[in-house]
Amino acid sequence: MKSLRLALLGCGTVGSEVVRLLHEQASDLTARIGAPVELAGIAVRRSGRDRGDLPVDPALFTTDALGLVKRDDVDVVVEVVGGIEPARTWLVEALKRGKSVVTANKALLAEDGGTLHDAATEGGADLYYEASVAGAIPLLRPLRESLHGDRITRVTGIVNGTTNFILSAMDATGAGFTEALEEATALGYAEADPTADVEGFDAAAKAAILASLAFHSRVSAADVYREGITEVTAADVASAKEMGCTIKLLCIASQIAGSVSVRVHPAMIPRSHPLASVGDAFNAVFVEAEAAGQLMFYGRGAGGAPTASAVLGDIVAVGRNRLAGVRAASESAYADLPIRPMGEAVTRYHISLDVADRAGVLAAVAGVFAKHDVSIATVRQSGRGDEAVLVIVTHGAPDAALAATVRELQALDVVRAIASVLRVEGAV
Amino acid sequence: MKSLRLALLGCGTVGSEVVRLLHEQASDLTARIGAPVELAGIAVRRSGRDRGDLPVDPALFTTDALGLVKRDDVDVVVEVVGGIEPARTWLVEALKRGKSVVTANKALLAEDGGTLHDAATEGGADLYYEASVAGAIPLLRPLRESLHGDRITRVTGIVNGTTNFILSAMDATGAGFTEALEEATALGYAEADPTADVEGFDAAAKAAILASLAFHSRVSAADVYREGITEVTAADVASAKEMGCTIKLLCIASQIAGSVSVRVHPAMIPRSHPLASVGDAFNAVFVEAEAAGQLMFYGRGAGGAPTASAVLGDIVAVGRNRLAGVRAASESAYADLPIRPMGEAVTRYHISLDVADRAGVLAAVAGVFAKHDVSIATVRQSGRGDEAVLVIVTHGAPDAALAATVRELQALDVVRAIASVLRVEGAV
Repeated sequence: MKSLRLALLGCGTVGSEVVRLLHEQASDLTARIGAPVELAGIAVRRSGRDRGDLPVDPALFTTDALGLVKRDDVDVVVEVVGGIEPARTWLVEALKRGKSVVTANKALLAEDGGTLHDAATEGGADLYYEASVAGAIPLLRPLRESLHGDRITRVTGIVNGTTNFILSAMDATGAGFTEALEEATALGYAEADPTADVEGFDAAAKAAILASLAFHSRVSAADVYREGITEVTAADVASAKEMGCTIKLLCIASQIAGSVSVRVHPAMIPRSHPLASVGDAFNAVFVEAEAAGQLMFYGRGAGGAPTASAVLGDIVAVGRNRLAGVRAASESAYADLPIRPMGEAVTRYHISLDVADRAGVLAAVAGVFAKHDVSIATVRQSGRGDEAVLVIVTHGAPDAALAATVRELQALDVVRAIASVLRVEGAV
Repeated sequence: MKSLRLALLGCGTVGSEVVRLLHEQASDLTARIGAPVELAGIAVRRSGRDRGDLPVDPALFTTDALGLVKRDDVDVVVEVVGGIEPARTWLVEALKRGKSVVTANKALLAEDGGTLHDAATEGGADLYYEASVAGAIPLLRPLRESLHGDRITRVTGIVNGTTNFILSAMDATGAGFTEALEEATALGYAEADPTADVEGFDAAAKAAILASLAFHSRVSAADVYREGITEVTAADVASAKEMGCTIKLLCIASQIAGSVSVRVHPAMIPRSHPLASVGDAFNAVFVEAEAAGQLMFYGRGAGGAPTASAVLGDIVAVGRNRLAGVRAASESAYADLPIRPMGEAVTRYHISLDVADRAGVLAAVAGVFAKHDVSIATVRQSGRGDEAVLVIVTHGAPDAALAATVRELQALDVVRAIASVLRVEGAV
């Protein structure tokens, strides 16, 4: 029986778990694929590092990733390095040569997935990337395949574990963002430079991948409206609690009137929403489809072992395909829907205003909403004197109209300060 | 472009939704499969019935299902009739002739899936059955494919909507079983004869299918230990509440020491467990795998449209395979694990005893547990006189030892009555 020969690019947290699982589950993998899996080589940045604990021949390590990818005895290239270059060069080279690719590289897929898909088509190779979104949660295959007989209308997800840990901590303890970030860093949930997570770049990349699959269109990270969680305050969290809500960093992709709206931003959701109880560093994705109704997928979104589980599942799939001499369905982008600008997305705002305590304040404020054609759902006034606060939740309106309303409220002389502005998702 | 020709067997709730979706999403399906889908015929029990609202040519209806299956111009057979015969005869005939089969028939798969899989292998045909378990939730494909690089250790599911509705109602209102069943019947959640649901037969069939996929072994409905919910009382639900728990009908499949344990029974689970918040007629399946950790899949488990969504997803998959001239991976039963008897399954019990209010009662009761080597986790005594109650939660022990303990407690003279015995799952 001819074996399936893998080139592994990267041997960090995820890569070493892949090596361990390939070793531990060798006989199960052979039975499931129909052929044994063999490591042809492992590309690493520095060759000198001690990897004595890994169950592999040290001679397999190389610093020449491109050379490894080009070798004739490599059937499948597994990439767990991340980043745009040199990963793109390696994967394009592999795909064009007809080698199947399994990758966890969300940044590359979101930035330039088209180039990879085109190379896969050119080489007649498989391109699998289950591990790129929501770690171990089997999510892309269901979107790619199981729901193909249905029409997905909306995907709402918590796809970044670091920010979910931070927001969960803020919700549980009343801590501010900085304090919660420090805790996340101390516990290893946040990286030394947390920018990609807390500013929403990581979630935006995943949102682009999800939107592409759900709506059969090419959506890139640049198409995603993005706001991070660095400006979420303890006061915002307290406001949300008063409304029976919690704050989550959501990625939301929806199909509206023949266009795709994709956005990542913090939002208040009611505690009764299935996503509200997704705590700590867990991920979950809520899918709404015309016939299927509401679905939710929940699990660990990151970490070496969960991500490696998704990579191994893809290795089994591409291995079987190679053995059968077939290629999986390629990219489905036939719908080719345009991107809807954020200003046209319909959202709802929760706005807390510090206001002057005198007659006519509500009339003045309401007038601004009316001028921008924004309908108010609820108003709550509390406090007196210097403590007078007005809390307004709107009905759905174009985001641009809501933003313009907030700008104009700021200039209103009865408004001392805008204490908090948050979007609201789900029935509050 | 040659079209994909379907024979639809059955045109009830699910079948008519399949017809509707095929019509409404015709152009999307063509793009996703790569060929148009065409109905070659629809087999129904009675031909006279008015189906004027369905967007199909009335000439397609036939009462000769077997004749339809045998027709040379049929590529794919979609069965949504249910039951063992004549469905088995039709599907075996189709598969042996090399026609792909998409079925929602859990009873047949659980009773005699082996015969179908063997026929599929003989005919070189695809056998897909996503709709047979948990309706619209993409569950079987993830188990079959996404988690193939991992080792699943346990699957815990709420897979019957009727019983979940009844137990949720009992939990919410304090109603007894009979009253909650009446409400479920009135609302259309329970059938006129609810036996298959409330006695756990439906859940047991699904448990067999899940266990087969998760553990790569042939598991049939007869291998599943089964208890329904007819004996769950309002007092049990109240007891569970006092413990911070709720009662759910669970299907539990686990791999223990080289064997498979599969059971369906009501159990107390803590309210903090992700399955506890699955309300109404929703389904959810909680999967634990070595590398992936904990995963959960949630959605609508029944109903015409959700089930039809799963059927359509399978139609797209088999359609693509036919166009590519390939067959999906066949049944994976290589592990061939034996079934572990229920008596050897490790479970935990929650036992409420009405006891005599006198010294020495606890010693006598504890002695019975010790005799059977069952370790007690917590004991709570409440009430005095005729109201004296002893509530005991055990640690994990073989189910047979727990059952023997309960039998012996019954005979103890300090025990006036056993008020409630329930298994407990999850950390209480």
